[in-house]
Amino acid sequence: MSLKAFDYESLNENVKNCQYAVRGELYLRASELQKEGKKIIFTNVGNPHALGQKPLTFPRQVVALCQAPFLLDHPNVGMLFPEDAIARAKHYLSYTSGGLGAYSDSRGLPGVRKEVAEFIEQRDGYPSDPELIFLTDGASKGVMQILNCIISDQKDGILVPVPQYPLYSATISLLGGTLVPYYLEETEDWGLDVHNLRQSVAQARSQGVTVKAMVIINPGNPTGQCLSIANLQEILRFCYDERLALLGDEVYQQNIYQDKHPFLSSKKVLMDMGAPISKEVQLVSFHTVSKGYWGECGQRGGYFEMTNIPPKTVEEIYKISSIALSPNVPAQIFMGLMVSPPKPGDISYDLFVSESKGILESLRRRAKIMTDGFNSCKNVVCNFTEGAMYSFPQIKLPSKAIQTAILAGKVPDVFYCLKLLEATGISTVPGSGFGQKEGVFHLRTTILPAEEEMPEIMESFKKFNDEFMSQYGFITT
Amino acid sequence: MSLKAFDYESLNENVKNCQYAVRGELYLRASELQKEGKKIIFTNVGNPHALGQKPLTFPRQVVALCQAPFLLDHPNVGMLFPEDAIARAKHYLSYTSGGLGAYSDSRGLPGVRKEVAEFIEQRDGYPSDPELIFLTDGASKGVMQILNCIISDQKDGILVPVPQYPLYSATISLLGGTLVPYYLEETEDWGLDVHNLRQSVAQARSQGVTVKAMVIINPGNPTGQCLSIANLQEILRFCYDERLALLGDEVYQQNIYQDKHPFLSSKKVLMDMGAPISKEVQLVSFHTVSKGYWGECGQRGGYFEMTNIPPKTVEEIYKISSIALSPNVPAQIFMGLMVSPPKPGDISYDLFVSESKGILESLRRRAKIMTDGFNSCKNVVCNFTEGAMYSFPQIKLPSKAIQTAILAGKVPDVFYCLKLLEATGISTVPGSGFGQKEGVFHLRTTILPAEEEMPEIMESFKKFNDEFMSQYGFITT
Repeated sequence: MSLKAFDYESLNENVKNCQYAVRGELYLRASELQKEGKKIIFTNVGNPHALGQKPLTFPRQVVALCQAPFLLDHPNVGMLFPEDAIARAKHYLSYTSGGLGAYSDSRGLPGVRKEVAEFIEQRDGYPSDPELIFLTDGASKGVMQILNCIISDQKDGILVPVPQYPLYSATISLLGGTLVPYYLEETEDWGLDVHNLRQSVAQARSQGVTVKAMVIINPGNPTGQCLSIANLQEILRFCYDERLALLGDEVYQQNIYQDKHPFLSSKKVLMDMGAPISKEVQLVSFHTVSKGYWGECGQRGGYFEMTNIPPKTVEEIYKISSIALSPNVPAQIFMGLMVSPPKPGDISYDLFVSESKGILESLRRRAKIMTDGFNSCKNVVCNFTEGAMYSFPQIKLPSKAIQTAILAGKVPDVFYCLKLLEATGISTVPGSGFGQKEGVFHLRTTILPAEEEMPEIMESFKKFNDEFMSQYGFITT
Repeated sequence: MSLKAFDYESLNENVKNCQYAVRGELYLRASELQKEGKKIIFTNVGNPHALGQKPLTFPRQVVALCQAPFLLDHPNVGMLFPEDAIARAKHYLSYTSGGLGAYSDSRGLPGVRKEVAEFIEQRDGYPSDPELIFLTDGASKGVMQILNCIISDQKDGILVPVPQYPLYSATISLLGGTLVPYYLEETEDWGLDVHNLRQSVAQARSQGVTVKAMVIINPGNPTGQCLSIANLQEILRFCYDERLALLGDEVYQQNIYQDKHPFLSSKKVLMDMGAPISKEVQLVSFHTVSKGYWGECGQRGGYFEMTNIPPKTVEEIYKISSIALSPNVPAQIFMGLMVSPPKPGDISYDLFVSESKGILESLRRRAKIMTDGFNSCKNVVCNFTEGAMYSFPQIKLPSKAIQTAILAGKVPDVFYCLKLLEATGISTVPGSGFGQKEGVFHLRTTILPAEEEMPEIMESFKKFNDEFMSQYGFITT
């Protein structure tokens, strides 16, 4: 009997080969336990509102009014909404033809793209062209679309940091391309060594792979580092020398928890380097409304900006954007608000600043509590979270634990994370889901649990961990 | 000098091969003319709100409140929102963990999926399992994801009606598969002849193509027909005999403008046929919030329901859904509201019914005005729009017009539609964008322009058309 289209055996092998650990075995088990009534602390995904972060008031007022335009001229609207939110809602509705219920241009609303360009100009000090900015349903969708354009088959390679956010490995698998790993150096605050990069490229080329582009995640996910200007310059020079495009995942650019390494955009560093590099390196940079102090993950909004991408290619990207008609319009409004928040003097300015500062300062404190907590545990070492939303401690698993895991048919860090979940309800992602050096183990947590719960969570982690290490005799190979 | 990743020449050929006429040459020219100040009537895409359709009040009130949850307990909320909208917003927020700003499960909120299952049960009279319903960012994204699972390469074929909505041709190109066309019969109200289907399959197989699935669009896009029960039974039996999966694009199921052919879901007809067919045919059905009397295109909400799909495959589809984390949450709420609208006795019931009836009845009248208008034109014949949102008149182009077009380097119907656009501002899509029989020409318009503007638009069309036909001497080959 011949197979049918949806029989497992006949599915696209690229689909079957994908791995997406952030919602993998650990998440599925956590969901089961939650159904059984266990209290689960979901730190598997950077989903701030799910862990109690409140939305910023002003943007929500504006989008609520855009959804309910019949309120804008209602005599009582001022009893529930401040004047500046009403004005802003009218402003954004004027960008649409037909409000939030109409498809926008497939690249997003021109007015919002203009606001994004102004934000980028302000941030970097260089011009930005709205025609080269496309709005997307979250940054992930943008990354997938861009990779789709440049990966034809397995001879096309993409340099991806290890550890990496599995969006990249999963998308490259789905598109049938080749992931070319380059390792971040844990002992150097997850910095990046260009010599290693060259080796990775040389090795891939020797295997017949055409290395097309390099991904950087800055600030790092899961690793939390902020790349230094020197490192970014080295990367851009490397891309120039090797004729690689650069994909800059910069979704955590607002999430910075120290002053030594401020966020620097790839675009700015590229432009600062001047010609020929600034005119040659093809760069696509990604941003989102899901992170920062916004955390509006569920809205699915993002953008990408293209630099040095040929016009004919921009047209092709526009064409494939149009197949699904348009990104969702409400999230486009969020993106507009994110890049043009209330200004001093606006009615909502003070509230907006106090809310956003409150969130950022608390994240900064939580980053520290978490790093310190992990470093107080037996057989655990952890770099400080300079930026982003994650802590990525190394778990030095005792040999006996590794053997037990292998006997149980589990990857050792999956084994550890499952035990942690069952014992404490803390749902993490094993380091193997992000990639790590052979024989070294990690886990990723977000730093997002509520600040007041953080000490208890870290205590509960420490209790579990230290007992686990004791049970397996501490000794590592 | 070696090519760089984003140089046009090195892009993925599948991307370059995509065609998406709904936003193709005609749309781009119309956008240019609009920028130059010309009044354009965009009938290229089914985008009701862009042509003045007002959103339904109750769903917008509920979603606005979900965006602004801080209003729910505000003492003045009752001055702007009715009680049932407040209650419904609380109900939907209780489905989330963290409101609209939190990622949902990658399949969508379990509570909404349950409401969708109840709607399907009510509609079809057969059980529906929420675990087999996935919410999506519009139906298009669902179709793309499902086709991605079953197309590996060009040996995988998908039967697609011609004329068809170019989502299918574009997606199949993008995935590198093979479109196997089957022709709808214009002289039989765009019905479908199973003998032709068998021929199409046989021919594809003789060329080494594995035909995996068949797409039906019911009600038809661009053709506007509603498939009869006999036709649906033939199709399902054919799928059973040939071991093909069926993809049922049913996004226009609320848009019915006659009583002879009510909408029948593929699921219901399949279940009515009983075993073995009902247990064997793999079916995925698609729906959306963008069409019906909702027209909430910009929100990007939809779902698909899977029938007879093996659990291991469902898991794979879940896994690839998770790569982009979750569909946007506000549109999930719209989907919930669409499948469980206000009930008799609810405060908002009367308003909801009068708004939705008003829209549907007007669409019904517009369908008739448009068909009659086209049929009053020289060298134009047009089937009645039984359902969906489109009119698809055949334009019998004079031989001289065809020769002139070819000399100008244009596909003849593109030539005609461009002239129409320049003369009248009416932005349509040439039939060649949907596929048509050799030597036969069409255009697609939506029936969505405001009812009061319809007579004038049709007059303006007739004036252009009749002059065009006269200019080129009427005579067809």
